[in-house]
Amino acid sequence: MSDQIATAWNRLKALPQRSLQELFAADGARVAALSGRIEWPGEGGETGILFDWSKTHLDNELLAAFEDLAQACDFAGHRAKLLGGEIVNVTEGRAATHPAMRGVGDAADVEEGEALLARMGMLVEAIHGGEFGEINHLIHIGIGGSALGPALAVDALTRDLALVDVHVVSNIDGVALEEAFAACNPATTMIAVASKTFTTIETMTNAASALKWLAENGVSDPSGRVVALTASPEKAVEWGVDETRVLPFPESVGGRYSLWSSIGFPVALAVGMEDFVAMLAGARAVDEHFRDNDGAANLCLRAALADQYYARLRGCQTRACFAYDERLGLLPDYLQQLEMESNGKRVKADGSPVAGPTAPITWGGVGTDAQHAVFQLLHQGTHLVPVDFIASIAPGDGLDPAHHAILLTNCFAQGAALMAGGNMAKDGKDPARAFPGDRPSATMLCDDLDAATLGALIAFHEHRTFANAVLMQINPFDQFGVELGKKMAKDIEAGGGDFDPSTQGLLARAGLA
Amino acid sequence: MSDQIATAWNRLKALPQRSLQELFAADGARVAALSGRIEWPGEGGETGILFDWSKTHLDNELLAAFEDLAQACDFAGHRAKLLGGEIVNVTEGRAATHPAMRGVGDAADVEEGEALLARMGMLVEAIHGGEFGEINHLIHIGIGGSALGPALAVDALTRDLALVDVHVVSNIDGVALEEAFAACNPATTMIAVASKTFTTIETMTNAASALKWLAENGVSDPSGRVVALTASPEKAVEWGVDETRVLPFPESVGGRYSLWSSIGFPVALAVGMEDFVAMLAGARAVDEHFRDNDGAANLCLRAALADQYYARLRGCQTRACFAYDERLGLLPDYLQQLEMESNGKRVKADGSPVAGPTAPITWGGVGTDAQHAVFQLLHQGTHLVPVDFIASIAPGDGLDPAHHAILLTNCFAQGAALMAGGNMAKDGKDPARAFPGDRPSATMLCDDLDAATLGALIAFHEHRTFANAVLMQINPFDQFGVELGKKMAKDIEAGGGDFDPSTQGLLARAGLA
Repeated sequence: MSDQIATAWNRLKALPQRSLQELFAADGARVAALSGRIEWPGEGGETGILFDWSKTHLDNELLAAFEDLAQACDFAGHRAKLLGGEIVNVTEGRAATHPAMRGVGDAADVEEGEALLARMGMLVEAIHGGEFGEINHLIHIGIGGSALGPALAVDALTRDLALVDVHVVSNIDGVALEEAFAACNPATTMIAVASKTFTTIETMTNAASALKWLAENGVSDPSGRVVALTASPEKAVEWGVDETRVLPFPESVGGRYSLWSSIGFPVALAVGMEDFVAMLAGARAVDEHFRDNDGAANLCLRAALADQYYARLRGCQTRACFAYDERLGLLPDYLQQLEMESNGKRVKADGSPVAGPTAPITWGGVGTDAQHAVFQLLHQGTHLVPVDFIASIAPGDGLDPAHHAILLTNCFAQGAALMAGGNMAKDGKDPARAFPGDRPSATMLCDDLDAATLGALIAFHEHRTFANAVLMQINPFDQFGVELGKKMAKDIEAGGGDFDPSTQGLLARAGLA
Repeated sequence: MSDQIATAWNRLKALPQRSLQELFAADGARVAALSGRIEWPGEGGETGILFDWSKTHLDNELLAAFEDLAQACDFAGHRAKLLGGEIVNVTEGRAATHPAMRGVGDAADVEEGEALLARMGMLVEAIHGGEFGEINHLIHIGIGGSALGPALAVDALTRDLALVDVHVVSNIDGVALEEAFAACNPATTMIAVASKTFTTIETMTNAASALKWLAENGVSDPSGRVVALTASPEKAVEWGVDETRVLPFPESVGGRYSLWSSIGFPVALAVGMEDFVAMLAGARAVDEHFRDNDGAANLCLRAALADQYYARLRGCQTRACFAYDERLGLLPDYLQQLEMESNGKRVKADGSPVAGPTAPITWGGVGTDAQHAVFQLLHQGTHLVPVDFIASIAPGDGLDPAHHAILLTNCFAQGAALMAGGNMAKDGKDPARAFPGDRPSATMLCDDLDAATLGALIAFHEHRTFANAVLMQINPFDQFGVELGKKMAKDIEAGGGDFDPSTQGLLARAGLA
């Protein structure tokens, strides 16, 4: 197997590097060949997302060679394991059942997901129905995988209306929690405590301070206002949450893949169960596409092939995502965690070193803002950055349609300009005004940005990340890389540990040693 | 000159690469040698920021060779030109007088800055004094350099109290403006329109929609509520702003360096003139340090030397900044623009190609959140990322001191862990739990995060960026790289232009062609 992988890479490395302009000139059907839609039933017929990868350097030769690589890496076998509920997180001996939370997976996992969803739905509807009195605010306390998904979804889907005003608090810095306090009326506020292990120090410290705030502000039973979202329900009960308000999720759902589980509670509370279920359905449409399509016809795998091309054959250490939609302002942060925590590894699943680069630094921003901040480097810098654009045909605003038309025009113009290049000087010769062009981009164009589409966009990236992991033979589901820093922080708190002179000096100056 | 530069680089490339542990073992005085403070008078004596670069790979040999490089690049001469108000933006034939806005520069520029500041102060105090009726909200409309500085400073400095509630709106996406509308009472809202040229399409479109909103919501004289912040005051007057409410700034202040000019108006309105002036004073302390120190004793230059080391000798395409302070959540975005738009270039100031890589992709986040999202890659990924940590000894919150202690402990532990490495497995042998270590970081430890400190932090990075530009022989003050995309967007709007089939397809699908 590993010989076949090496052979596939050697073949890939030997292929000619053609410019985007050459590729478009050589193949009139290129756009159709490298574009595809994932669809699901919408209100007025099929709705979905167009994935146009034609402005990347992929061509038929590369795709054929990459398909051999995927085969050599047993992509189909790994996918079957993932979606069959088998152990794919080999270092921790676990399955990864986030697709099952959306209805795609082993029957028992899917059934468990449905039961947990029903349990969450009852609590959400009880709160909406007034069983906890008037509830206008939720302070959702969680960090990393317990925060970024809820923050993204709430921000994206509640611009027009939020059934409950949600504040996501992550940072141990008390400034974050105080900001939420200032925006909430304690008399009508609930607290969600989201932690897979229910031991995360930031989350438990913030939760304790939040309960104190409720108590100091006249709430007679602060614990009665707490909902726990966790894979360790017994720890939540021990901490003082009544088990009727503990919403568990399976150990096999990873933190950064947990939006679909009870970690999505704040989303459901803000948008209602109907939209939350629609988000799951959009993700499921992508699961089914991912399950049912092979080779480069699988759009998640195709994106991963381009990712591998830029990372391993073009030396790109980064990949950027620009959402031309204010509602997706948190998507780059979400994708950054998804990709970098999943695939920012040095060893393969079997423990041997990875031969090439792994996850790129994933970064980005929101358009058009980013055009005025970082696109200078994309157009004229020395680093090649593969760029993803995401936009929605339907506007999110009700202002003059000029706003949305300019937004989309700029999005498409940037992709065109990165590829075309040119010279903006009158005589066409000023090197400071020259653009080399041949810079790649991919575009995801949504029909509309509703709950289902958001679910589909996220699930697309989950499977893209998984496909990248398979191609690099990595386990994307562990995250041991966060442990050493945690341990050293504990050593400092315990007054132990043997630290370097710089760290000793900083601790002394801050009064911590 | 260019021979000397090549010689300096050859010497640098020939130096041995030592690990951080070797460097610490070899030099017991390393922390003192590679740390320094920039200070200014505070309430209880000198206050300031500690810059600890000892956990980077710089050593005496590297510093000596880099000092030769700086000399070969005529660092002192370029610095004198910058601070003397001479033309340093050679492609546009302009000086760069942002330090003069804080009091360091050519006497005439400084005097102009003082006069413009006094003019702004009068308007700010008139608004605070009620001359425009009750004003509780400001919608600040600007993008890129006209937005990121105000957004950062308002977010950092008004957590406890804002004299006026400021909403920064950048995106042409109407969702951004609608969000501000929803948070403001039109009867007590002013509008700031910030655009250096007063032609930026996003800003002018948003400004028109904001005036419409005021008019539709019972404000009889919407134009009377507008303040213009611009280097083209005549255009603002033409657009309908009374000249008493036009706050100009000099053409020689670049957009991404404009926080110190009238673009800082929303900051002054939110924090008061006293704190705004304190922010300028903090920046001035750094200007003076930058002006008065040579070689590696100049902390801004020293940071740039490390930047060049990682970019050119270690192949790092990125650099990351993690602010362990919730109030600095927008700092990574600000620094991203500052570095990438300034130095994301392909040609030198003389038009010839740059031989090596230019600006890194600058990214980051807020701690501790980022530990749970991206630090996996920093610790165990395959890409070397030089990391900056920023923290404040004094807490920003009034909660249990445990919050701030855990925050700082984690910050220092991360730098220690990146450098030390180790293995978290019980038997010390599991490769998935192994950390290679020898990963660099720098730490900026502030005594407190007040207005002066924020000014100092930003000015430090401005001069660091300038020093990097000098070492690469780049002009950091133009940004022609943003022009091609703008032109293509205009071509699309005009129905002209000859676009690639992918762009044509996207336009057609979105109903724009």
